[in-house]
Amino acid sequence: MFPPVSTVPTGPGAAAVPLELHEDRCFDPDPAIRRVARALYEETRPLPLICPHGHVEASLLAENRPFPEPAALIITPDHYIFRLLYSQGISLEALGIPTRSGAVGKRDPRRIWRLFAAHYFKFRGTPTGAWLDYELYHVFGVRVQLNADTAEHVYEHISERLASPEYLPRALFERFRIEVLTTTDAAADGLEHHRALRASGWQGTVLPCFRPDALFRIARPEWLRELARLEAVCGSPIRDYGAFGAALVARREYFRGLGATSTDHGVEEPRTERLPDEEADALLQRAIRGEASAADQQRFEAHMLMEMARLSVADGLVMQLHAGALRDHNEPIRERYGPDKGADIPVATEYTRNLRPLLNAYGNDPRFRLVLFTLDEATYARELAPLAGHYPALRLGPAWWFNDSIEGMRRFRQRTTETASIYNTAGQPVGDHPPRQVVAHHVIDLEDARPMARALAYELAKETYRLPAGDRPLQSGGGT
Amino acid sequence: MFPPVSTVPTGPGAAAVPLELHEDRCFDPDPAIRRVARALYEETRPLPLICPHGHVEASLLAENRPFPEPAALIITPDHYIFRLLYSQGISLEALGIPTRSGAVGKRDPRRIWRLFAAHYFKFRGTPTGAWLDYELYHVFGVRVQLNADTAEHVYEHISERLASPEYLPRALFERFRIEVLTTTDAAADGLEHHRALRASGWQGTVLPCFRPDALFRIARPEWLRELARLEAVCGSPIRDYGAFGAALVARREYFRGLGATSTDHGVEEPRTERLPDEEADALLQRAIRGEASAADQQRFEAHMLMEMARLSVADGLVMQLHAGALRDHNEPIRERYGPDKGADIPVATEYTRNLRPLLNAYGNDPRFRLVLFTLDEATYARELAPLAGHYPALRLGPAWWFNDSIEGMRRFRQRTTETASIYNTAGQPVGDHPPRQVVAHHVIDLEDARPMARALAYELAKETYRLPAGDRPLQSGGGT
Amino acid sequence: MFPPVSTVPTGPGAAAVPLELHEDRCFDPDPAIRRVARALYEETRPLPLICPHGHVEASLLAENRPFPEPAALIITPDHYIFRLLYSQGISLEALGIPTRSGAVGKRDPRRIWRLFAAHYFKFRGTPTGAWLDYELYHVFGVRVQLNADTAEHVYEHISERLASPEYLPRALFERFRIEVLTTTDAAADGLEHHRALRASGWQGTVLPCFRPDALFRIARPEWLRELARLEAVCGSPIRDYGAFGAALVARREYFRGLGATSTDHGVEEPRTERLPDEEADALLQRAIRGEASAADQQRFEAHMLMEMARLSVADGLVMQLHAGALRDHNEPIRERYGPDKGADIPVATEYTRNLRPLLNAYGNDPRFRLVLFTLDEATYARELAPLAGHYPALRLGPAWWFNDSIEGMRRFRQRTTETASIYNTAGQPVGDHPPRQVVAHHVIDLEDARPMARALAYELAKETYRLPAGDRPLQSGGGT
Repeated sequence: MFPPVSTVPTGPGAAAVPLELHEDRCFDPDPAIRRVARALYEETRPLPLICPHGHVEASLLAENRPFPEPAALIITPDHYIFRLLYSQGISLEALGIPTRSGAVGKRDPRRIWRLFAAHYFKFRGTPTGAWLDYELYHVFGVRVQLNADTAEHVYEHISERLASPEYLPRALFERFRIEVLTTTDAAADGLEHHRALRASGWQGTVLPCFRPDALFRIARPEWLRELARLEAVCGSPIRDYGAFGAALVARREYFRGLGATSTDHGVEEPRTERLPDEEADALLQRAIRGEASAADQQRFEAHMLMEMARLSVADGLVMQLHAGALRDHNEPIRERYGPDKGADIPVATEYTRNLRPLLNAYGNDPRFRLVLFTLDEATYARELAPLAGHYPALRLGPAWWFNDSIEGMRRFRQRTTETASIYNTAGQPVGDHPPRQVVAHHVIDLEDARPMARALAYELAKETYRLPAGDRPLQSGGGT
Repeated sequence: MFPPVSTVPTGPGAAAVPLELHEDRCFDPDPAIRRVARALYEETRPLPLICPHGHVEASLLAENRPFPEPAALIITPDHYIFRLLYSQGISLEALGIPTRSGAVGKRDPRRIWRLFAAHYFKFRGTPTGAWLDYELYHVFGVRVQLNADTAEHVYEHISERLASPEYLPRALFERFRIEVLTTTDAAADGLEHHRALRASGWQGTVLPCFRPDALFRIARPEWLRELARLEAVCGSPIRDYGAFGAALVARREYFRGLGATSTDHGVEEPRTERLPDEEADALLQRAIRGEASAADQQRFEAHMLMEMARLSVADGLVMQLHAGALRDHNEPIRERYGPDKGADIPVATEYTRNLRPLLNAYGNDPRFRLVLFTLDEATYARELAPLAGHYPALRLGPAWWFNDSIEGMRRFRQRTTETASIYNTAGQPVGDHPPRQVVAHHVIDLEDARPMARALAYELAKETYRLPAGDRPLQSGGGT
Repeated sequence: MFPPVSTVPTGPGAAAVPLELHEDRCFDPDPAIRRVARALYEETRPLPLICPHGHVEASLLAENRPFPEPAALIITPDHYIFRLLYSQGISLEALGIPTRSGAVGKRDPRRIWRLFAAHYFKFRGTPTGAWLDYELYHVFGVRVQLNADTAEHVYEHISERLASPEYLPRALFERFRIEVLTTTDAAADGLEHHRALRASGWQGTVLPCFRPDALFRIARPEWLRELARLEAVCGSPIRDYGAFGAALVARREYFRGLGATSTDHGVEEPRTERLPDEEADALLQRAIRGEASAADQQRFEAHMLMEMARLSVADGLVMQLHAGALRDHNEPIRERYGPDKGADIPVATEYTRNLRPLLNAYGNDPRFRLVLFTLDEATYARELAPLAGHYPALRLGPAWWFNDSIEGMRRFRQRTTETASIYNTAGQPVGDHPPRQVVAHHVIDLEDARPMARALAYELAKETYRLPAGDRPLQSGGGT
C-alpha cells in the first residue's frame, strides 16, 4: 500500500533478519485453490473499505493531530497485545497500563517497546502477529523483523514516520481508501466531534452509531451517572419510563441527523421479552432509588432490546446485537486497573429461544434489520444460520473478536454459508474463503464466484447497514 | 444418469450461459486426495441406493401419476427453497404457499418460477443450489444456467420432460436404482398406498416406517384428533393407558406386516424416563380431559421413548431418534400458513444424561438397535461418538437436515470416525469423505479403504436398518 | 525405532498381506505442507520424550519383569480397544474382562487374540488402529497385516519378542528415549515402587503425581475406606477438617520428596468455591457419619479445588484439572464388571463461570500454575483459549482422551493457537500441526516455525510442568 522504504539498520541491529511478507501470504498452499483465490483477490482488492462497526474515536479524525509515539499508539491501548503479554507473566505496569489510583508512575515508552519486542515471537500464529507484521511492513515500511535487537531501530523508524504529514489520521484514512467509517458512541454523547468533522469540510465519511447499553444496566453503580448525562443532553429530568423512552427516541433522532444508520447493543445473554409499561416503569423507579438488582437489570435489558427493535422498525436504524462476553472476568485486575483490560471471556450463548420474542414481533417486518454477532461458534451452524436463513430481518455479522482471524473466518463461512447463504450475512471486509473453496471443488464456477466475492468484500456491508449510495441491487453475475 | 439433451435456447435466452457440471465437481482440489476419491467413487457408484429414511409419499409411487408442473414440484413443497427466498424478503404468498384460511388466491406457476429463477444465484454455495444444478443437468437435461432470462425456457423444458412416461415416479425410482425406499407414516395411518403398491405387482421395494410422535404430544390441541384416528383404525375405544399401549403394539405389528423394519421419533429434547404405569395412565387421563400441560407432555414423551425401546427389543423394529428441533419458531408464520414453513430452528441438545435411562435399560441388548440423529454438531465428538463407541445397540445416523451438506458431512465424519469407527454409523448414502482423507494421509491404504467405502455407501445402511437380504457380514477387505 | 525383522509367515497365513507403513504416513497430501512438515519433523524427531501425565504403573519399571502374553498386554487392560469391540456386539467375557464376582472362568488368551484379530479392521480410521499398526510394525517388527488368518502367527511373534530382554519395561523405556515419565498416584499411596526405583540405581526418571480425587468424593460408598487409607499412611486419626487438611499437606510434601512436580484432579463439573472452614468441616463430619449427599460432595469438591490451588501457590506443585467425564455411564456394566470399562462419556462443560473464583484468587500469582484439560471441544475457542490468553497461571493441556487423535489434535490447535498462542499451552509430545499450516500459508516462515515446533515437542512440556533442568528460556528462533 505504501512504497517500500529501505531501512536496513547499520547499527547494533545489523545482523537483523529482513522482514519479508511472502507474496502468497494467507493464500492456500494448494495451487488450484490459490489460483482461484488470487483471481478473486485481484478483483476485490481495489474496492474501497466499508467499516460499519468499530471503535475508532471521531476526535481522532476531527482533530487530525499526529499519533503518539509507538508504545502509546500500538501497545498500551490494545488489549489483544497486552493480554497475551500479561498471560506470559509480564505485569501491566511494565507495559505502561495505568492503575485506577494513578499510583504507578509513568513508564519510559522505549522500555515498554523493548519489552514488547523481546516477547514478540510469542505472537507467531496469532492474528495480532499477522496484522502487526503487515502494519510494520506495509504501513510503516519496516524491513527488519522485530525483536530485542531491533527494537530500538524499529521504534525510531516508526516515530519518524508518525511525525510526517502522511501519517496524520485523515491522510491514513484516505490512503486506506475507507469509504465509510462508523464509530461507536454512547446514547448521551453530544457527538461534538462528528459535528466538527462535518463542519470541517473534509470529505471522509464518518458516521456515529447509537450504543445505549450503559443506560440499560440499571444495577450498575455508574447507572445514575449515565442517567444524569442523558438528562443533561436532553435538557429535562427523566423520572419515569415515559420520559426515558422519549429521551431515547430523541437521541436516536439526533444520531440520525448526523448520519447514523445503526445502533449497537451488547449483552451477556441475548434475552428478549416485552414487559408491560408499568413494569418497565417500576424497574426504572427502583434503579433511580439505587435499588435495582441483577435480576431487575436482566429483565430491563430484555425489555429494552424489544423496545430498540420497535424503534428501529420506525426510524430505520439497523440494530446490531453483540452477545456472549462476560466482562472483566479478572476481578483483581478490574479493581486495580479498571475495566477492559483483556479479561473479557466468552460464555456459551443461546439464541433460538432467547431471540424468539423479538423475532416473532419484528423479524418478519421488511423495515427492520438485525445484525447478530456471537462469540460462541457452536451456534453458527446450529442456531444462527438457520435463523438467518429464515427471518427476513436477520443478517449475520462477520466472525467477531477472538474469531476475527484466518481460522475463525474460515470456520464462520464453513458453518453458515450452506444454510444461510452468503446473502444473509453482512459480508466480511477482509478477504474471504468460501467462494475459493467451492470454486476449487467445482461446485460453482469462477464466473459465479466473482459477484459473490464482490458482495462479501463490499456490497453486503453497504446493503446490510443501509449505508449511503448502497442501493445498487446485488449482482447475480454470469448469465444475467 | 440421463442422456444429455441439447437444449440451448434460441429465443430471448439466447445469450444464456451454458450449464456445465465440472467432472471434478465435489472432489478435493488436492490431486492426491482426488485420485483416491475417484477410485473409491468409481467402485461405489454402481451400487444401488438404500434410502432407509425419507419423506416421499407412498401414494406417489402407488398412483404413479405424472408429477405436477415445475413450480408445484420443485418450489412450493420444499422448505429448503422457500425459507431462503423468504429470508431474502420474498413473501410466501408470492411463492404460492397457501395460507391456512385459503384467503389468498392461486398464483400463476410461471410467475413463481420466474421469481425463483431471478433469485437463484442466492443459492450458490448452498447444498440446495448444488443439488438443483445436479437435478437440472442430470435429471432434466437442462443445459443453460437458470436465471431471470432463462426462466421461461427452463420451465418449458422441465414441463415437457415431466409429461413423458420416463418421468413418472416409478420410472425415476428405477432409473435412480433405488433398492429400498422407506417412507414415514403416522401410527394411525392405514397404509393403503403401501398395500396398493404391494398389490400392484410393481417390483420396487417401498417400506413404511412407524412414526407415532403425534400420539405422544398430549399437550397439543390436535392430540384428541390423533387419538380418535388411532381408535378408528384399531376399531375400539382407548380410554386408559393399557388400551393405549395395546393399540401401539397392534399398530407396530400391522406396520411390520407391510415390511416395516423401523420406527421414528422426533423430540425437542431427548429425555428418557420410565414412569410407573399408574403415572403414565394419569397423564393420559389428563390428556383425554384436554388438561395436559407442557410439563405433562415432556414426561409422557420421556416415558414413551422408554416404551418404544422396550417394544423394539421385542419386535425387532429399529428405533430412530431425531432430536433438537424447535418447531415453528416463527409464530406469525405458523398462524398464517400453518406448520412446517421453514422455521424449525435447532437448539443445543444433551444426550449423555438424557439417554442414560434408556441406554442403561436396553442399550446392552443385542436385539435392540437405536439410530441417533442430531442437529447439534457440538455433540458429535463430545457425546455421540463416545456413546456409539460403547453401547452395542447404538448407531449414529448420518449428518441430518442442515448438516446434510458437503461441509456438514465432512464435519460429521471428522468428529465421529476416530472415536466411534465408521462401523458404528448407519453409513451415508451419498459420497463420503473419511476414507479418502485417511488414505491420502497414508494412515490406511487404498485396499483397506475399499470395503470401508462400500460399507458407507451401501452395507451399513442395510445392516443398521435390518433391511431384507442385508445379512451379508461386513467385509474386512484386503487380507481376509 | 526397532530394526525390521523378516517375519513373513510360511504357514496358514502365507497368503497374508504385508504390513507396510507408508513413509508419508500422517503427513498432509499437499506437497507444500508436507515439505514443511517433514522439515520440522526431522528436527524434532531426535528430541527425547517428555511424558508429564500418564497411567503407567511405577511397579512395572520398579520390578522390571517381562510383560504378559499379548492378549493380557494389549487387549484386556485397554478400554480404547475393548469398548469398540463391545460396541460391535462382542461380550466383555469373550475378551477376558473379569466380572466383579469372579464368576466367569478364565479365557484362553489365544482365543481372545483371534477374536480381536478378526475384528481388527473395524479400527481403521481410529487412532487406536493407527497406533496399533505402528506398535506392531515398529515395536514388534510384525510385517503382516493383522486379521483372522494371521492372528496365530502374530500372537506367536509378539510372544517371542516379549520373552527377550530387549522387551523388558526398562529396556523399552530407554529405547523410546523417555526423558521423564510421570505416573498418577492416589494421595494415600505409599509410593513404595517409586522409592524402590530410586534405590535401584536405574537412571530413568520416573516421577509420582499427587491425585487426591478419591478423598474428595465424600458421597461415594468407598470414601470411608479412602479416609482410612489416609489415616493409615499418616499414622494418626483424621476426625476433623483441620486434620484432613494437615494430612493433605503432609502427603504433598511426601510426594515432592520423591520428585513430584504436579498434582492431578478429575471432576465432572469444574466448580470452584471457597467455603468457610466451619462449613468444610461440617461436610466432612457428615461424610464420616456416612451421610454426605451428592450435593454435599459437589460443594466439597469445589472447595477442595480452591484449597489445592492455595497449596500449589505455597509448594509449587503444578495443578492439573481434567474435567467433563461422566464416569461409568453404563450402570449394568459397572455392576457386573466394576468401574472403568469404557463407558465414561463426556458432558458439556462450563469453565468461564466455574473457574472464576479460583482464577480470581490465584490466577494472577506467578507461583501458581494450572493446566486445564477438556473433553468438550466447544470450549477450546470460546472459553479456554481466551482464559489462557489472559491469566498468567493458566496453560492448556493437550487434546485429551477421545480428542488425542490426528483430527482431534488438529482441531485443538486450530481453535486455541490464534487466541492463546502456542506459548500458553503445555505442548503436545507427539507431532503437531499448526506450525506446518501457517508456514504453508506463509503467515510465518520456516525459520520462525523451527523454535515453535521444538517448543511444542519438548520445551513447553518441561517448562509447564516445572520438570528438572527445564529452566532454559524458550527460544524465539531466527533473528535473535
